[in-house]
Amino acid sequence: MNSGMSRLPIRQSLGLRCEGGSLWILDQSLLPSSEVWIEIRDCEHMAECIGRLAVRGAPLIGISAALALAMEAVRGTSIDKLREKALILRRARPTAVNLMHAIDRIARLEADQMVESAVKIFDEDRAMCEAMAERAAAKVNDGDRVITHCNTGGLVTAGIGTALGAIKKAAQQGKRLHVYIDETRPLLQGSRLNTWELKRDQIPFTVICDNMAGFLMSQKQIAAVFVGADRIAKNGDVANKIGTYSLAIAARYHQVPFYVVAPETTFDQECESGKNIPIETRKSDEIIKDCEAWNPAFDITPRDLITKIITDSREY
Amino acid sequence: MNSGMSRLPIRQSLGLRCEGGSLWILDQSLLPSSEVWIEIRDCEHMAECIGRLAVRGAPLIGISAALALAMEAVRGTSIDKLREKALILRRARPTAVNLMHAIDRIARLEADQMVESAVKIFDEDRAMCEAMAERAAAKVNDGDRVITHCNTGGLVTAGIGTALGAIKKAAQQGKRLHVYIDETRPLLQGSRLNTWELKRDQIPFTVICDNMAGFLMSQKQIAAVFVGADRIAKNGDVANKIGTYSLAIAARYHQVPFYVVAPETTFDQECESGKNIPIETRKSDEIIKDCEAWNPAFDITPRDLITKIITDSREY
Repeated sequence: MNSGMSRLPIRQSLGLRCEGGSLWILDQSLLPSSEVWIEIRDCEHMAECIGRLAVRGAPLIGISAALALAMEAVRGTSIDKLREKALILRRARPTAVNLMHAIDRIARLEADQMVESAVKIFDEDRAMCEAMAERAAAKVNDGDRVITHCNTGGLVTAGIGTALGAIKKAAQQGKRLHVYIDETRPLLQGSRLNTWELKRDQIPFTVICDNMAGFLMSQKQIAAVFVGADRIAKNGDVANKIGTYSLAIAARYHQVPFYVVAPETTFDQECESGKNIPIETRKSDEIIKDCEAWNPAFDITPRDLITKIITDSREY
Repeated sequence: MNSGMSRLPIRQSLGLRCEGGSLWILDQSLLPSSEVWIEIRDCEHMAECIGRLAVRGAPLIGISAALALAMEAVRGTSIDKLREKALILRRARPTAVNLMHAIDRIARLEADQMVESAVKIFDEDRAMCEAMAERAAAKVNDGDRVITHCNTGGLVTAGIGTALGAIKKAAQQGKRLHVYIDETRPLLQGSRLNTWELKRDQIPFTVICDNMAGFLMSQKQIAAVFVGADRIAKNGDVANKIGTYSLAIAARYHQVPFYVVAPETTFDQECESGKNIPIETRKSDEIIKDCEAWNPAFDITPRDLITKIITDSREY
């Protein structure tokens, strides 16, 4: 069937595992109370896991989708079917551009090249994480208090993470930090997932509600805010988890540096500005039952509220 | 025992009921899923209900504490005991000044005057609500979209409410409105209590997470923000439910008028500025289990972020 790799090679990150030719994901919707690994049956199953946020985070959903296609290629799914399935994966979530990049990169290949390419996406992501974490960690000084929003750590990448990766890297460098974690409503990625990651790494933290960040900045010296990105427009406007924009406004008001840490692949050269980025609206019942709610999953932070965008190859 | 009123007269608001000489409170911690009325046994019981937020909202806790003292006066509790109990009530929550005002006003009286004075506090509050709601409703135009934070309606006063009272009053005047309700983490007074009140009054609303308010202002024309106050310093700095400050910063950034609606009694002539207002810090487990959280119940919004403070007697 294929000339290159006949099976998925072994790869493992905090939230994803390839082994013995099968693909597993850690169901992030159940963390931290349960650590449940799910064996992915096919691309449709992966798309469903991405849609319900069992697999989440811009880099990871791109990597996971690519590996799901690769897995089906190994199993002999026809190239026509693979390209249909690529479209299903591509549409699993509308805002993160990494997913589209990963699918576009792999879907045009022949089946026998898909495995190699998917594994390369995984390996490149790990290397990009190291590069951007190193660069962003330089913004952190010994003794700093920092704020972060949503989960952007090892769970959402193949490596150390993006914004949380920078914080972890600074801690690995021996800097003493205190991390204030926005709980990140409505799905509590901060209080569920950042707490889980920082406990593993023994980095001290305090959880706050999202609406406390402004008051925190007024009460305690906050050195910086670090967030990730789901898509960055050509002009530098950033789509990221809902709440990022309010946090950036509060940071500006208090003159606190505001850093976006994301791989270069998060830039979308098709998007002139944040106005062109589609924002996924999710169901009311993630916020409240029996009432109407407005539930945008992301918001747009304009470039002028951002101190620096830090990628694997540059500061911008 | 007393020459004036020998029993509590009948009074009723959305969250409080005096009848047949006994005092009942609606347990707001259980709304909206259960409507449970609790008969108050004594002042200690009322202090406990205030502490655990079964009775909540700056005006209501003052009124409720005064009526609890009055009830015990009717029952013949000695004046020494009454003054001891007044101190327990006064300390039930540290930030709202209305509680202290109400207790100070009633605790220095003789037992036989306490009932009359407590009922007067109730009746005055109802009249103040009408006056400030009328004045603040004038800021609302037909077709406006407004944002409100925390619950400041009939549940927290003897009358129509403060900030939510203004919105209800505007609707009563025939203005068509749409209310965006901050869910108000951590205790969700917005999504639990404002939804309950606005459904009763058939005023259309949409719930948002607190971290969405900034993005909402950037996406839709918001006419104004209305919030209440728990204490106002002499210089006009306002202590109110945590999240008010971040909301005020976002409103300023978007040039959205920001109104504080509160009775004149919310001013504390002992406090020069917001720096002098004690902020109650509550337990971590209101936010997250098994992790450390920072949980200030209130924050301070400086006067310069506030368009107008609207009271029962003036705009400031």
